[in-house]
Amino acid sequence: MNTESQEHNHRAHETRELISVPLGLRPKPLRKQKHSVGIGERALNSSENQEESSLRIPAPEKGTVRIIALDGVERVGKNMHAMEYDGEIIIFDAGFSFKDPTLPGVDCTVPNVKYLADRKHMIKAILISHGHLDHIGAIPYIMDDLGHPPIYSRRLTIALIKHRQQEFTHMRPLDLREIETNQVITVGNFTIKFFAVTHTIPDAMGILVQTPYGHVAYTGDLKLSHENEVVDNEEFETFAIFEKEKILVTIADSTNAENPGFSKSEKTVVNNIIDIVKKSTGRLIISSFSSQIDRNIQIIEGIIAAGKKVVIEGRSMLTNLSIAYELGIFKVDPQALIPVAKCGEYPKEKLVILATGSQGEEYAALDRMSKGTHKQIVIDDNDTVIFSSSTIPGNETAIQNVKDQLSRLGAAIVTYQTSDVHSSGHANKEELRWIHNHMKPKFFIPVHGFHYMLTAHARILRDIGMPKENIIIPNAGSIIDFVDNGKRAILQKYTAPNNPIVVDGNAIGSVQEVVLRDRKSLGEQGIFVCIIMINQRTNKLRKSPDIISRGFIYMRESQDLVNKARIMIKNTVEEAIDGETFINVEDLKKYITKRIESFLISETHKEPIVVPVIFIS
Amino acid sequence: MNTESQEHNHRAHETRELISVPLGLRPKPLRKQKHSVGIGERALNSSENQEESSLRIPAPEKGTVRIIALDGVERVGKNMHAMEYDGEIIIFDAGFSFKDPTLPGVDCTVPNVKYLADRKHMIKAILISHGHLDHIGAIPYIMDDLGHPPIYSRRLTIALIKHRQQEFTHMRPLDLREIETNQVITVGNFTIKFFAVTHTIPDAMGILVQTPYGHVAYTGDLKLSHENEVVDNEEFETFAIFEKEKILVTIADSTNAENPGFSKSEKTVVNNIIDIVKKSTGRLIISSFSSQIDRNIQIIEGIIAAGKKVVIEGRSMLTNLSIAYELGIFKVDPQALIPVAKCGEYPKEKLVILATGSQGEEYAALDRMSKGTHKQIVIDDNDTVIFSSSTIPGNETAIQNVKDQLSRLGAAIVTYQTSDVHSSGHANKEELRWIHNHMKPKFFIPVHGFHYMLTAHARILRDIGMPKENIIIPNAGSIIDFVDNGKRAILQKYTAPNNPIVVDGNAIGSVQEVVLRDRKSLGEQGIFVCIIMINQRTNKLRKSPDIISRGFIYMRESQDLVNKARIMIKNTVEEAIDGETFINVEDLKKYITKRIESFLISETHKEPIVVPVIFIS
Repeated sequence: MNTESQEHNHRAHETRELISVPLGLRPKPLRKQKHSVGIGERALNSSENQEESSLRIPAPEKGTVRIIALDGVERVGKNMHAMEYDGEIIIFDAGFSFKDPTLPGVDCTVPNVKYLADRKHMIKAILISHGHLDHIGAIPYIMDDLGHPPIYSRRLTIALIKHRQQEFTHMRPLDLREIETNQVITVGNFTIKFFAVTHTIPDAMGILVQTPYGHVAYTGDLKLSHENEVVDNEEFETFAIFEKEKILVTIADSTNAENPGFSKSEKTVVNNIIDIVKKSTGRLIISSFSSQIDRNIQIIEGIIAAGKKVVIEGRSMLTNLSIAYELGIFKVDPQALIPVAKCGEYPKEKLVILATGSQGEEYAALDRMSKGTHKQIVIDDNDTVIFSSSTIPGNETAIQNVKDQLSRLGAAIVTYQTSDVHSSGHANKEELRWIHNHMKPKFFIPVHGFHYMLTAHARILRDIGMPKENIIIPNAGSIIDFVDNGKRAILQKYTAPNNPIVVDGNAIGSVQEVVLRDRKSLGEQGIFVCIIMINQRTNKLRKSPDIISRGFIYMRESQDLVNKARIMIKNTVEEAIDGETFINVEDLKKYITKRIESFLISETHKEPIVVPVIFIS
Repeated sequence: MNTESQEHNHRAHETRELISVPLGLRPKPLRKQKHSVGIGERALNSSENQEESSLRIPAPEKGTVRIIALDGVERVGKNMHAMEYDGEIIIFDAGFSFKDPTLPGVDCTVPNVKYLADRKHMIKAILISHGHLDHIGAIPYIMDDLGHPPIYSRRLTIALIKHRQQEFTHMRPLDLREIETNQVITVGNFTIKFFAVTHTIPDAMGILVQTPYGHVAYTGDLKLSHENEVVDNEEFETFAIFEKEKILVTIADSTNAENPGFSKSEKTVVNNIIDIVKKSTGRLIISSFSSQIDRNIQIIEGIIAAGKKVVIEGRSMLTNLSIAYELGIFKVDPQALIPVAKCGEYPKEKLVILATGSQGEEYAALDRMSKGTHKQIVIDDNDTVIFSSSTIPGNETAIQNVKDQLSRLGAAIVTYQTSDVHSSGHANKEELRWIHNHMKPKFFIPVHGFHYMLTAHARILRDIGMPKENIIIPNAGSIIDFVDNGKRAILQKYTAPNNPIVVDGNAIGSVQEVVLRDRKSLGEQGIFVCIIMINQRTNKLRKSPDIISRGFIYMRESQDLVNKARIMIKNTVEEAIDGETFINVEDLKKYITKRIESFLISETHKEPIVVPVIFIS
């Protein structure tokens, strides 16, 4: 969870695609549903309250630079921040987070943009640092609220946003504007510069927004290109920009801030993989995240240089590489790429297959190979499978199953646990130290990560001499104002609305605790519905109660229990209402619910949700 | 998942205890319930079929040594194996596995013991290697089936089994027999020896059962005691036994067989922790698995030697250390132990708290400290928390939350990711090589791990020269016969019954696919029940359909949808039965279910389980 946000969201994307196929559905036009996904006794903030409070938040005084940490600061994922100055707003990134075990059934969560929606006339632009879903994923869900401001980013990022938008056919077209890092743009009264950063996807960049007190610098996700912890010249050249630019505040990626030293060099990883390619005397299958476009391109180039042929297998892998190819970011002799259908025409030892499915995703290329259901690729004991990927928490079992199946079929397996065939896209502690030593910001706001990671990042800045009061560790919704001509930072007591917003089916809205709590219970204990028909005249049941139960016990084999329950319910109800002239249905429901719950616990030691339905006639 | 089976099961134990308290329930007397937990279209093997096949399995011929790999060979957990020779059976271990995301709501899974139950008159003993739950956890669930054979193990293991049995009050008392590693025992016609092994709990042992062709050697879980990869003398002394003992087959722990080199030395881990204890100028909290009794004892001894006081906090930690203390395995001056209630009487820097909750378990000691609900221990910025534990897959979020909360309260945090404060209890590749080089078995059966781990273990034996045909990688239920006077191994085509057995509430039985599939759907999409009352005379609905829905959408805010659904259901039913003189209720149910499903998908993009209930009167 703490190292691979881009991969996490890559998976999100892939799963989403995969899920949409068997259902035969494309995401529907989004609309604010009348039905929402939550509320209830435990709901912390109703959206009404939050709405009120957003408008009550005082505007920053003239000359104050305000940063709003919308999300991506108490977790890995759904990164989004904004800056406000003299009545104008600039947004940095708009990511989503996929599946969360604490939100069962929810498709994804997106940042709460109420603060921005209430001020949409002030929004001048959304600037996107790079094309991973934890930075672009929320776009389709929030653009209506934000009044469709223009979106600026580099070529590949724009292409990826455009491609994804195809899933949201009924949406108003996006105003996408391509920029390059050598450009300086003006948006409203803001002057904005960019600088290239190293991540795992081409066209990643940091953003500099000018203020009278220095730039607001937003790094996006980044690591350093290095070899044996010697930073490459290109990084020195890029960061040379900071010799002349004064930085008011750096807002930077904390994902790996607790990891010591340098992250594993991406060059080492690619070289190791190419070494395996060269030495391999059988067929090779390399499974990787399709979002690691940089690495995938380098691997393909290395395979071709080694005189072998490449098969790209798996939809998201093909899509991402095609987009890069169309843009000329990825240059390849089409002769060296073999369509999977023609695999059989080449000697196996001449083939390297770049495949999706490194997380054990069902129906992905590797999953089909492992199950023997892949049409063209039948695994045997001359095959080697490299997992050029880490294990995203939650996927352990699925990955283990794929590995087990592949090894049953005879394949040798290489993973990052035993060889250097994968590296994270985020800077470790010493890289971050290098970055901050070059940027020399006056203030610092760590973002992108759980609170603990932000704290670890803050500690690095303390180490290199930044005063404690110049470091602000934000929560979701934190508002930080730079006042006194950029001399002082204030973490305001008021916060932007920050109650979680979920996408659940085609509804977008606050989390409805009641519904989620029910899903959790249903998913473990099941449900027990009984239909009770009371004869108003006799106060007796018209018939034996009907019982409907799902996910509790197997009813067809539990006739004894069902019969016992029927008798117990009948007797309990009839005793309870015996002689009554007026039946309080709500009270009766509560009473019978408790009695049924006790009965089922004592009989089965399970606690299904009990729902009595009472008809009186 | 692949390294910490004992810890996994430790957690199982702890969670079980914690869960049982708020419910105010103790596990009930177990009985074979009439209601079982599954079956359905996709059930692979009904227990009836399996029952038949177990009795059809041919008995081994006289002189044949049979090994039955009951479980713990396609996964980490629920370890159990048996050996059969000339009409007598010996069992090695009887572990369980806790929660499995593919089995929602299931309490635990236990090995399928049908093969043994069908031959219970032949069972002479259960031999337990050590006291972790993946080796002892199934005992209460299987003893009735096995006819209550005697259980042999060393002192601490016997004490832990006895303690756990207190949760199963209505069970027939166990026949527990304490042995020591210097003993040779006779059970039936078997002569059995033992050898001490290094694991993370005292009194771990391997087992040697004599046959005319050499011993059957079962290692249990083990690693090597070493310093900088130099194996300690005590290991040489223990393994010296194999200079004179001939080994027919070794059955050994594969959990970490894919990890290169040596596992981290336990001494290094303990020394590092004690170093932190000595240097610490504030209060120190060490969170660990309560099942790592060895390490916890050494840490306490180190703290006392450093002149500080120890607080043991958390029920399972106290229980396990109390049991060890009562047996004299753990010797401590009671003066050095401070009850948590008296914390306040000592200067904070003199206190070290050994606490449960390293997996972020709710209500555990560390969880309460992190939430500020611990009565005596209020975290501040002079505190340091050491997580002397790894992250068990599935617990990432819970652990991250506890770390975040602790760091918000100001605590410094030390984890195995950044310091050597934890090590696994299982041997890595080079340790396994050392072990096999000393044991020199003729045959080898890798166990305890996923198939891929067993394969990695098998590769080590190939490396040190064992012929391929002498290595048998088993599946759950595999039957391996050593024939021709122990000269040849046959992996039989027939297998012992191996369909998964689950504990679900107080039912034990085969997995009922229907119920589990329903739980999965209910847990993500919810349920939508509609009650339709048809007037037999008019073929019209007597009233608007009643709708009961849980876990789907928040009904109170979705009145529009509910009304629309009611009208749609009414119209659909009335159209369908218009003019019919006989209503086929089953067909009508199927038809209306499909129509409601389509309606809900198109309206909400969710797919709840739809249950129509039809009354005709």
